[in-house]
Amino acid sequence: MTYEVKSLNEECGVFGIWGHPDAAKLTYFGLYSLQHRGQEGAGILSNDAGQLKRHRDMGLLSEVFRDPANLDKLTGKAAIGHVRYATAGEASVDNIQPFMFKFHDGQLGLAHNGNLTNAVSLRRELEKNGAIFSSTSDSEILAHLIRRSHNPSFMGKVKEALNTIKGGFAYLLMIEDKLIAALDPNGFRPLSIGKMANGAIVVSSETCAFEVVGAEWIRDVNPGEVVIIDDNGITYDNYTTDTQLAVCSMEYIYFARPDSNIRGVNVHTARKRMGAQLAREFKHEADIVVGVPNSSLSAAMGFAEESGLPNEMGLIKNQYTQRTFIQPTQELREQGVRMKLSAVSGVVKGKRVVMIDDSIVRGTTSRRIVQLLKEAGATEVHVAIGSPALAYPCFYGIDIQTRKELIAANHTVEEIREIIGADSLTYLSIDGLIDSIGIDTDEPNGGLCVDYFTGKYSTPLYDYEKSYLESLEEHTSFY
Amino acid sequence: MTYEVKSLNEECGVFGIWGHPDAAKLTYFGLYSLQHRGQEGAGILSNDAGQLKRHRDMGLLSEVFRDPANLDKLTGKAAIGHVRYATAGEASVDNIQPFMFKFHDGQLGLAHNGNLTNAVSLRRELEKNGAIFSSTSDSEILAHLIRRSHNPSFMGKVKEALNTIKGGFAYLLMIEDKLIAALDPNGFRPLSIGKMANGAIVVSSETCAFEVVGAEWIRDVNPGEVVIIDDNGITYDNYTTDTQLAVCSMEYIYFARPDSNIRGVNVHTARKRMGAQLAREFKHEADIVVGVPNSSLSAAMGFAEESGLPNEMGLIKNQYTQRTFIQPTQELREQGVRMKLSAVSGVVKGKRVVMIDDSIVRGTTSRRIVQLLKEAGATEVHVAIGSPALAYPCFYGIDIQTRKELIAANHTVEEIREIIGADSLTYLSIDGLIDSIGIDTDEPNGGLCVDYFTGKYSTPLYDYEKSYLESLEEHTSFY
Amino acid sequence: MTYEVKSLNEECGVFGIWGHPDAAKLTYFGLYSLQHRGQEGAGILSNDAGQLKRHRDMGLLSEVFRDPANLDKLTGKAAIGHVRYATAGEASVDNIQPFMFKFHDGQLGLAHNGNLTNAVSLRRELEKNGAIFSSTSDSEILAHLIRRSHNPSFMGKVKEALNTIKGGFAYLLMIEDKLIAALDPNGFRPLSIGKMANGAIVVSSETCAFEVVGAEWIRDVNPGEVVIIDDNGITYDNYTTDTQLAVCSMEYIYFARPDSNIRGVNVHTARKRMGAQLAREFKHEADIVVGVPNSSLSAAMGFAEESGLPNEMGLIKNQYTQRTFIQPTQELREQGVRMKLSAVSGVVKGKRVVMIDDSIVRGTTSRRIVQLLKEAGATEVHVAIGSPALAYPCFYGIDIQTRKELIAANHTVEEIREIIGADSLTYLSIDGLIDSIGIDTDEPNGGLCVDYFTGKYSTPLYDYEKSYLESLEEHTSFY
Amino acid sequence: MTYEVKSLNEECGVFGIWGHPDAAKLTYFGLYSLQHRGQEGAGILSNDAGQLKRHRDMGLLSEVFRDPANLDKLTGKAAIGHVRYATAGEASVDNIQPFMFKFHDGQLGLAHNGNLTNAVSLRRELEKNGAIFSSTSDSEILAHLIRRSHNPSFMGKVKEALNTIKGGFAYLLMIEDKLIAALDPNGFRPLSIGKMANGAIVVSSETCAFEVVGAEWIRDVNPGEVVIIDDNGITYDNYTTDTQLAVCSMEYIYFARPDSNIRGVNVHTARKRMGAQLAREFKHEADIVVGVPNSSLSAAMGFAEESGLPNEMGLIKNQYTQRTFIQPTQELREQGVRMKLSAVSGVVKGKRVVMIDDSIVRGTTSRRIVQLLKEAGATEVHVAIGSPALAYPCFYGIDIQTRKELIAANHTVEEIREIIGADSLTYLSIDGLIDSIGIDTDEPNGGLCVDYFTGKYSTPLYDYEKSYLESLEEHTSFY
Repeated sequence: MTYEVKSLNEECGVFGIWGHPDAAKLTYFGLYSLQHRGQEGAGILSNDAGQLKRHRDMGLLSEVFRDPANLDKLTGKAAIGHVRYATAGEASVDNIQPFMFKFHDGQLGLAHNGNLTNAVSLRRELEKNGAIFSSTSDSEILAHLIRRSHNPSFMGKVKEALNTIKGGFAYLLMIEDKLIAALDPNGFRPLSIGKMANGAIVVSSETCAFEVVGAEWIRDVNPGEVVIIDDNGITYDNYTTDTQLAVCSMEYIYFARPDSNIRGVNVHTARKRMGAQLAREFKHEADIVVGVPNSSLSAAMGFAEESGLPNEMGLIKNQYTQRTFIQPTQELREQGVRMKLSAVSGVVKGKRVVMIDDSIVRGTTSRRIVQLLKEAGATEVHVAIGSPALAYPCFYGIDIQTRKELIAANHTVEEIREIIGADSLTYLSIDGLIDSIGIDTDEPNGGLCVDYFTGKYSTPLYDYEKSYLESLEEHTSFY
Repeated sequence: MTYEVKSLNEECGVFGIWGHPDAAKLTYFGLYSLQHRGQEGAGILSNDAGQLKRHRDMGLLSEVFRDPANLDKLTGKAAIGHVRYATAGEASVDNIQPFMFKFHDGQLGLAHNGNLTNAVSLRRELEKNGAIFSSTSDSEILAHLIRRSHNPSFMGKVKEALNTIKGGFAYLLMIEDKLIAALDPNGFRPLSIGKMANGAIVVSSETCAFEVVGAEWIRDVNPGEVVIIDDNGITYDNYTTDTQLAVCSMEYIYFARPDSNIRGVNVHTARKRMGAQLAREFKHEADIVVGVPNSSLSAAMGFAEESGLPNEMGLIKNQYTQRTFIQPTQELREQGVRMKLSAVSGVVKGKRVVMIDDSIVRGTTSRRIVQLLKEAGATEVHVAIGSPALAYPCFYGIDIQTRKELIAANHTVEEIREIIGADSLTYLSIDGLIDSIGIDTDEPNGGLCVDYFTGKYSTPLYDYEKSYLESLEEHTSFY
Repeated sequence: MTYEVKSLNEECGVFGIWGHPDAAKLTYFGLYSLQHRGQEGAGILSNDAGQLKRHRDMGLLSEVFRDPANLDKLTGKAAIGHVRYATAGEASVDNIQPFMFKFHDGQLGLAHNGNLTNAVSLRRELEKNGAIFSSTSDSEILAHLIRRSHNPSFMGKVKEALNTIKGGFAYLLMIEDKLIAALDPNGFRPLSIGKMANGAIVVSSETCAFEVVGAEWIRDVNPGEVVIIDDNGITYDNYTTDTQLAVCSMEYIYFARPDSNIRGVNVHTARKRMGAQLAREFKHEADIVVGVPNSSLSAAMGFAEESGLPNEMGLIKNQYTQRTFIQPTQELREQGVRMKLSAVSGVVKGKRVVMIDDSIVRGTTSRRIVQLLKEAGATEVHVAIGSPALAYPCFYGIDIQTRKELIAANHTVEEIREIIGADSLTYLSIDGLIDSIGIDTDEPNGGLCVDYFTGKYSTPLYDYEKSYLESLEEHTSFY
Repeated sequence: MTYEVKSLNEECGVFGIWGHPDAAKLTYFGLYSLQHRGQEGAGILSNDAGQLKRHRDMGLLSEVFRDPANLDKLTGKAAIGHVRYATAGEASVDNIQPFMFKFHDGQLGLAHNGNLTNAVSLRRELEKNGAIFSSTSDSEILAHLIRRSHNPSFMGKVKEALNTIKGGFAYLLMIEDKLIAALDPNGFRPLSIGKMANGAIVVSSETCAFEVVGAEWIRDVNPGEVVIIDDNGITYDNYTTDTQLAVCSMEYIYFARPDSNIRGVNVHTARKRMGAQLAREFKHEADIVVGVPNSSLSAAMGFAEESGLPNEMGLIKNQYTQRTFIQPTQELREQGVRMKLSAVSGVVKGKRVVMIDDSIVRGTTSRRIVQLLKEAGATEVHVAIGSPALAYPCFYGIDIQTRKELIAANHTVEEIREIIGADSLTYLSIDGLIDSIGIDTDEPNGGLCVDYFTGKYSTPLYDYEKSYLESLEEHTSFY
């Protein structure tokens, strides 16, 4: 039982660079700022005059490259890198990206963030035709499609393959003489392009990596776009024009780093506006505002400013939590031993607290934090969530593919309030969310994917269609 | 040049427990919450029916106990633990505490936080009489004094030894049948006593550890006090009555965790009050408040509330910074590559920023952060420091023993402002600091040690006297 | 330059088991006794009720399974394992076997010892048809051939694939319900079948593994044979009848462990007979016999007994040589610092020594050992080699694929003698070798492959044909 | 139950050097050849212009210095090193040598091989006078005695201290300007001096280290001698003249490397003579001779040559046995799984075997090897031991301090034969042993310590006297 760990997992982060003598090292620093997008494993693949080299392993980036020799050997002026999210399932170094393929007539590197909705059927068909996959990861499918395409040009093969896969994806491909970036037709996943002082081009899941490597943002990759980066610079092309922007709103709510900008909107600022809007929608009396660290601190700032209530550090997260192999036993946990989050009784005692969190998945975490605050002396705990109720699965890159685990798929707000032991529970409205983010676009839903709040999906679900429809019957929908 | 790391180092954290079957494991959890007090090394010593056992090593606690077997073997119902701060100097496992001594007629464990002012002369005298030290640490001296004391009782020996050493110290001693805690006559270092539900007694450098292990605070150890904890409970005794409370004010300003209480004052609340007071003393116009993460976030909250300016997340610290073996080369650093702290241009661009920090040591860090903010588009950066100018060394447990490295020992405020490139520079007044902390006491300076601000020392300096007086001549005093 | 390491590398060792609850652990012990066949990496794949699981990594077996959890998770009653030899080239975990493939309709594990002669052309053709290889190892080709075969039955696919590949190979395949062992049509590589007390069937590159796991030898796998092992026991089948026994004679001379039996002949006994025969062919006067440890000790015993000269321990190999990260610098080496092999001056001083070694590859090692013996006081050093002159490459599984590195491909015996600084040099005759081994068979060359001595190859060379013929022109043949 | 590991443990190996720029690295290579004398831990201490530096840790030398940086930092032209033997008891890095002490007025490094017989009483007295030991090792006592001596000169203090300790010892001491070697008055432990080509002086427990570092043997250190090595060369002095040579005969029988010379006698040659003498004392008929690897191979050579029986490799030791964390379970062991030693059925089947071993301690190992040979088909197994029956403890440096574990202290030869399941059992006679070794001396017992065979001790036993006399009553003496 790990109440501290969010049950939402991002499907990875990617970073690429073309044109710098320290390409692999800069990829390391870029990935370092994307570490929050994946902690299961990491890898970097470099391109030294057409020769691909790679190091990858399980663990945090700093563990994977604990021996600097593993980075030093990744010579060359271009590189791509990947951090992979942690799942309980098939943890194996074979699934750590970038993938690297060496053929008699060429080489191919590949890094992917997202989730394909027709992966199962594509893989089955490929295997029936003799394909052997080296991983259990869907990401590898694109390589097989490219190699089996009969299109005469390499970019023709790539476009054909990109049109075959469905779902949410941001792909980086490395071949001998170019780096290619591609985004799905809905732009579900973020992907931005930047430029360094020496002219090197960088691509990253988040713009926070640009700050770290000293690059300037040029623009975000557009839905349906394939971007070719080589010694001649950047070429923007489209593999499809049948596109509709639907950026994952959970990137703004929870995943992305506050200093990143997505589609021109700063994440911290969006969160602060969500907090302010939440304050306007909030109907209760309270003394202080307490954000759940770290993801809800921006929203708490916005809520406090809008409501006029003081913003207090009523919860403290241990800064040194990443890796410990010693955990409290169940018995010690019952005796009150907790390692990662503490309520500050000196702050909350005798107070009516508005506890700001970004989302509720299973409800377990929220229940524990409410309990912590009450044990520390809070007289009332009003839970205010900076996003609407999460009631439907995501098939485009967030690791929730069943409704079973979602408390809001199975309970009313009042039931949830009771389960988590709060004195009140307020979710942000969907309109409030869309307005707070405020992408400058005319696309529906303000250019956002809000499917997990509404249950209305932006695209056909392909391999997931059947099981999703079945799940709708099992779970009453409250939203 | 590591501008991100504070140049102030705390001299360690200690935790002890008597009366719980999981004593070593609870000590692990307690130390886990004290990790911010020392990252060079860690150790735990347990007492299994009179038999002392120990494991210690260099590195973070989680690294030292990466193999759970090393913790499992520390059986027994009592334990003491230690985290040691990082210095450039003599890094050796021999200096990692707790120390453990096995004699033909008994055993002794020892953990220490603080700095002795007569260590050099005591050590020299002991060695002249044949003593062999197993470490280069001053902490070991107490053990030699105890063993050489001719007092017939063990507690008599301990008291005699405590009266021989001078300076700042919080000591935990473990012998076969008791755990002993002792504090220096000024109470420079924090040390608190708590109790678990099962009756086990815990002692900790900070009360945040009590939250983590599920213990309740009983009271802080008093200056000059020696506390004996055994199967009969707690006995409070004094080894001296010549005491005067002078708690290290830097504990409130920077070292301690915001959720800890020292002498009845919550650290976060004290910091928020410092921020509010700083806002009152601040004389400039600005648009937003930005705290330097993580230590200055409370002060920023207080400043924002008092001033009415919005509190913004204009600086982001990478959460995954603890251990990386890959660092930017000087060349990459000049190209703008930085790993640990980013300015959020989406937040600060075009704004007049009040940058709140807790203190300035050498000025290097402040200059870099001001520069980051300006590069990110801030039009003005007003630096406001939540403490007075740090102009004198500390001899009681903070790792500043020379005036050379202190920018405020050598420059006026206006000079410092210019050096760090700020548009204005405001220090909190000493009175403002004392009022903001507000310990409930009649002792001078509100029961605080503010010697590093005033240059007037609470006690004789013994071995440091001569070099300190010389240093006064070298450095003009501005404060 | 590491003169102590033999330049001959075996292409791996395999071990498999069906029908024991501790299958993976027994595979570990089996591989442990095959460690001499490969030290670059190791892996074990288990079959738990049809579900394949695997752990593999670079390093010695004991390093790969340093964490026992990695072995414990390999549950199931069947397993295959592999140790891989060390090469300078492409050292990557991707090439460590067993390979494991998971399809939508089945699973496949694969371990291989040997070298395919048509691998390059097969791989190229497969890739042209869209195949993607997950390693740079030839061993993987068999899996692709099986998956692309249109034969309706699985065993039909396997036989078709085995008939497509050429060269030397011993393959172990694991699928859901069976373990399959296959040997090339010449039986170049050794492969034996054994049985445990509980009825479990084991397969191993060498019979020494049977001693270790407590199994009894049943029989060796025959050339062209495919053996199916499942819950019904053992089924022997042939995928081809076009066979001719040609066991690698270097297995007897150098690779195999002295306690193994190959084709009914004990390796130590064969070596002792080679030594005795060498003594009969030796024409010089000497005082003592000194074998180069460890591989030439048996031959030295045989030589001593036949010649009547005393067998002495005139050379000592450090027992703790496997892994050291500290090596003498060139300068220290010139000052006489040497780590792995010492000459015993107390034994050889003033003596005419017959130095017995198993083979000469580049001559560098022999020259150094002769020099060691002379520096230690030997008055004469007569080098006697327990095998004929190694003058041609091997394409069936020994890592010598060019003539450039072979001293005997480029020099006469007299020239070699001078190069290595010996007082005389005697090679065993080819007939003497064949007679000494003495397999009970009517096949040509006594059922042995002696191609690297004669240059007359047992099979067509396929992809190697062209480069081999070219090399013949470059190097004068003396043998 | 680990039948493969000898129950006899040597008390460490030491190596020192003065006058070479690569002092620490040469110490590494020297220790590398002494690794057989201790595998629990290792350390090296260097002297860089008077500044002592050290690295030590648990594990094999190659593990302790896995990170070359740990060796590189040991700069300076002088060094001492130590390998420590493995015991079940107090395994702690605190006990790993060399010890290093830093005083306000000097520094001291110390490495020790041997066992003191008055350690307990000396330690108690020192502690009563306030001494604090940093280890549980007796070796540290010398440092305390030196520091507490009132002799005005350092060498005077050292001599006084050496005269205070009793038992068997070879000490290396390092101070700012000299390296000191000292040997006990009986010369129980071996200690030799050599010289490198550049003039550097080396000291080593065994001469095999001289071969490895390219040094020439000068002479062995004499009993009661203290040797001072500094920039002026070597000075030989005596701290006592009350001496009598009694070299540990087990060094010749089992501990030392075959290529070492002790007191002018080559160890391999001595063992071969023991084997030959054993053949003369052997009264049975047999077909082949099989030595237990690796320690008994020399004796087997001698036995075979003297008896005319063929010497065969009937037992094989796995070369890769040093470190495995996976062991057969008891159940697997009963099923015949064994990892370290195999009998070669192809060699011993149907044969009457003379199994040569160097000694019998508990009998367990011998019983298992006899059983292995019989299971492999030997029709008779005649056990011939290259030393007399080991019936008494050693107090001078071998880890047998109680008679309980010695099978020969409790059983007659016939009983032992039956316990180990042999067809006959022959021990070498004590006179045979002394003659075979043949040191050129007039001292009693040929200058050898044979106390563990005779029970008549060369010196008073001090702290061990009482328990030894008691043990005599408990155990009937057969020898």
